[in-house]
Amino acid sequence: MTGIPLPTVQRLVRVLMTLPGVGPRTAQRLALHILQLPPLEVQRLVEAIQTARAAVRPCAQCFSMTEDEVCAICRDPQRATGVLCVVEAPLNVWAIERTGVFRGHYHVLMGVLSPLHGVGPEQLRVRELMDRLQSGQYHEVILALSPTVEGEATCTYLVAQLKPLGLRITRLAAGLPMGADIEYVDELTLTRALQGRREL
Amino acid sequence: MTGIPLPTVQRLVRVLMTLPGVGPRTAQRLALHILQLPPLEVQRLVEAIQTARAAVRPCAQCFSMTEDEVCAICRDPQRATGVLCVVEAPLNVWAIERTGVFRGHYHVLMGVLSPLHGVGPEQLRVRELMDRLQSGQYHEVILALSPTVEGEATCTYLVAQLKPLGLRITRLAAGLPMGADIEYVDELTLTRALQGRREL
Repeated sequence: MTGIPLPTVQRLVRVLMTLPGVGPRTAQRLALHILQLPPLEVQRLVEAIQTARAAVRPCAQCFSMTEDEVCAICRDPQRATGVLCVVEAPLNVWAIERTGVFRGHYHVLMGVLSPLHGVGPEQLRVRELMDRLQSGQYHEVILALSPTVEGEATCTYLVAQLKPLGLRITRLAAGLPMGADIEYVDELTLTRALQGRREL
Repeated sequence: MTGIPLPTVQRLVRVLMTLPGVGPRTAQRLALHILQLPPLEVQRLVEAIQTARAAVRPCAQCFSMTEDEVCAICRDPQRATGVLCVVEAPLNVWAIERTGVFRGHYHVLMGVLSPLHGVGPEQLRVRELMDRLQSGQYHEVILALSPTVEGEATCTYLVAQLKPLGLRITRLAAGLPMGADIEYVDELTLTRALQGRREL
């Protein structure tokens, strides 16, 4: 497959190809690079992987990643603002944190609904979300899921589940990304931007 | 830098960013993926890296990669055809092998001349190339370097070095890539294709 006649290299290429966004070409390039690294650098790479993997676990409350039992955000008393932001993955938590505008708690679903890939509500942290919301410490839940087909479907499902709780349910605005040239924005985004237009 | 407030993850992202073609975004995505792998998969990844790195070394003759002292191509008596193909890196050996049309030996320079990056002839396997060619077992040397500025400079340098040996010196044809639409081919490629046009 790789054209490289060395079994150990073929194996490395195959393993690297299991990483997200890494196709045969990239895997080959990465493998070749790794094979030309000095032994100490290889050790550093391997150690970084093992150390991080051993240290990191899901937060017992929000399922974001943490090196502790409960993550720093969940532990921070100032963040008990009564607002819970539902995201797909830990990466999204950090993306939202970088904006600095959200000061509440998170809940990581660990995916979105995807019947085609066998992901139903039971595969996600939906049960745990319901438990947290029923505790009475939240008055608003923000559904911060990506505006993709699966993200939308997950939103619709969650809204139906959450409605009976009587909380305020919101979702992220859809519209033009900042700096976009309207000429090059896709039609669906433009439609959403028009539908969601705001009074000035 | 990464916005991820976990030291071990930050370290992993930084290490992954040293890999070729891996920027902050990709490194973050790879790290997050690795951190969500089951322990056995992580072990498999680490082991593949370590095993390959321990097994692979440069061929003592051609400097391509091998798991033995001398690579399979150099060991194959049928490949002593008197033609030596000079390439930049092991990856190129495998690319040419995939075509199946070259049946001679290789010589891996381990780079191309790049004064800006401090790469002169002494940093490449030029001395070893001269030694091999002076042994008298080759009658032709093919310079199979990329048609980049640095590749061209390396060709020019090598031709000057090799001329006194009285061997046949050739280089890969430059021209239109197969399947290309002439309309979209860059001018330099088209110039080369015209200059190298062949009688039908």
